[in-house]
Amino acid sequence: MTLINHKFTLAARPAGMPKRTDWTYGEEPVRELADGEVLIKVLYISLDPAMRGWMNDSKSYISPVAIGEVMRALGAGQVIASRNSRFPVGQFISGGCGVQEYFISQGDGLIALDTRIAPLPVFLSTLGMTGMTAYFGLLDTGRPEPGDVVVVSAAAGAVGGVVGQIAKIKGCRAVGIAGGDAKCRYLREELGFDVAIDYKSEDVARALRTACPSGINVYFDNVGGEILEAALANLARGARIVICGAISQYNNQIMQGPRNYMSLLINRASMKGMLVFDYVDRFGEAVREMAGWIKVGKLKSREDIVEGLETFPETFLKLFSGENVGKLLLKVAEPESN
Amino acid sequence: MTLINHKFTLAARPAGMPKRTDWTYGEEPVRELADGEVLIKVLYISLDPAMRGWMNDSKSYISPVAIGEVMRALGAGQVIASRNSRFPVGQFISGGCGVQEYFISQGDGLIALDTRIAPLPVFLSTLGMTGMTAYFGLLDTGRPEPGDVVVVSAAAGAVGGVVGQIAKIKGCRAVGIAGGDAKCRYLREELGFDVAIDYKSEDVARALRTACPSGINVYFDNVGGEILEAALANLARGARIVICGAISQYNNQIMQGPRNYMSLLINRASMKGMLVFDYVDRFGEAVREMAGWIKVGKLKSREDIVEGLETFPETFLKLFSGENVGKLLLKVAEPESN
Repeated sequence: MTLINHKFTLAARPAGMPKRTDWTYGEEPVRELADGEVLIKVLYISLDPAMRGWMNDSKSYISPVAIGEVMRALGAGQVIASRNSRFPVGQFISGGCGVQEYFISQGDGLIALDTRIAPLPVFLSTLGMTGMTAYFGLLDTGRPEPGDVVVVSAAAGAVGGVVGQIAKIKGCRAVGIAGGDAKCRYLREELGFDVAIDYKSEDVARALRTACPSGINVYFDNVGGEILEAALANLARGARIVICGAISQYNNQIMQGPRNYMSLLINRASMKGMLVFDYVDRFGEAVREMAGWIKVGKLKSREDIVEGLETFPETFLKLFSGENVGKLLLKVAEPESN
Repeated sequence: MTLINHKFTLAARPAGMPKRTDWTYGEEPVRELADGEVLIKVLYISLDPAMRGWMNDSKSYISPVAIGEVMRALGAGQVIASRNSRFPVGQFISGGCGVQEYFISQGDGLIALDTRIAPLPVFLSTLGMTGMTAYFGLLDTGRPEPGDVVVVSAAAGAVGGVVGQIAKIKGCRAVGIAGGDAKCRYLREELGFDVAIDYKSEDVARALRTACPSGINVYFDNVGGEILEAALANLARGARIVICGAISQYNNQIMQGPRNYMSLLINRASMKGMLVFDYVDRFGEAVREMAGWIKVGKLKSREDIVEGLETFPETFLKLFSGENVGKLLLKVAEPESN
């Protein structure tokens, strides 16, 4: 029986918000494995704001996706055929699978997953790149001290929710910025944030001034734009700003820079970029610590799972409309039963 | 004989570029000294871009100059009457003198100067706040390593020229950005910069790409605006940006933020503000080291001295038109001869 792989390839480089026609949905038969290769059935695909940047033809930390190439994405799957002794049939893995149903790998970059530790989606969420970004971005770049005020934007998103929870675990005051009352309630009631600011109904700069009367010690930025400016306007002396993302700007033709960046001088503060890929060697320690926190109920992992590979374009756009809560995943298939 | 003090007081808060009528030039008799006070005859006044910020009624690292108050400025002078044993008559000092001919102090914040080490103007320049800003901004915030590429803007200015020379002393490659051919020749031929880029005739981003093929390791920013963006576009991995000033923006009603600040993420780079006042405890060590460099000819100090207190408004504006080379000082009077 020949397997058929359905996939999304990049058709055009979007100007502004992507649309379905920026990808081509196509199919092809899955080829035979060569020696050393494994065939993986994709079960979940991770949808991340960074994917928008990979669609642009500009210099970045990674080469752009080429036109005609499978859309780049991380995901989790199961080995269903193997000519590589490191990855036997039945093994669950995560890796750069692309937006498709099957992919063939020589094993490089694949991570074997132990589903006794956590369900598969959690390995793409709190125990995956998302959680690693929060963990190393906050602890290594933000360097919070107990008692510090930690503010995070897109706080109901995949990274932000973990940042706030780790801040609480580390004895900080956690202030989250999110859009809408439901998300703000989720932050306070489910994730234990001390304060949640609704940017859709509040003046964020003023709300931060009220919530952080002695200023922000660590600001973890996922959004850029006016919310970054509101945070800059409320820094404490020696504050650290972690630049993790700028989702409000990714679909703009011309990005807006923070007009009040001289607050860095006034407050002897710093703004530093972080990329999770730099911490690959330390993922093991982080996963062990985070899994421990999950086990004792200190850290909650939430996934927003949408079914069906073919919904990819519309599901991906939920990231930019602010519709999702927690980690947005595409469920592609069920694991093999035997 | 009653002394008459001439002084500039702040008359209005300028919108945009200041003009003469934003100050009032007035006079008043010098009052009698109380116990513990000294009377200082101002000899030189330091003209600094930061003074523009002090004219604005906005939250900063220091309170604004009040309307009617003497315009704040650093300067050097001589004690001509004293009821304070720490500062005898004849002693040269530096301190916050204001834009005036005489001032009375209780001695707090005054620094006694030894004119056998260097001429008085040098104590307001390379051995003063200006030199301290360059020294601690570069070495403490920029943390250059031998072989690093250090880029500085406003390189023919007071701070920039010292930054480039210290970079060379520390074994770095020094690239200066300045306006006009004369300044660029001065950087290369007098101060020993490896490369000088003329922002008035060159595309700075392109010139930086050529001058720094493996990227900028340390960028010391005095100007902000498009030159900051050009530097951001050419960072090496792990680059440090020192935010010292933003002279291109000080007279703008709305500042422009660096639109490509996400280069901090792409390059895992940082942008950090510095204020020289935080290093007061370490000025002694820096002055000793800098004086040693001056003595052996490794570090040149250049002052651009304009005579006459009454020229203050026009002389101050030379900072913003880019007319001065080196440290801009106003000479107010000669020292007492006996």
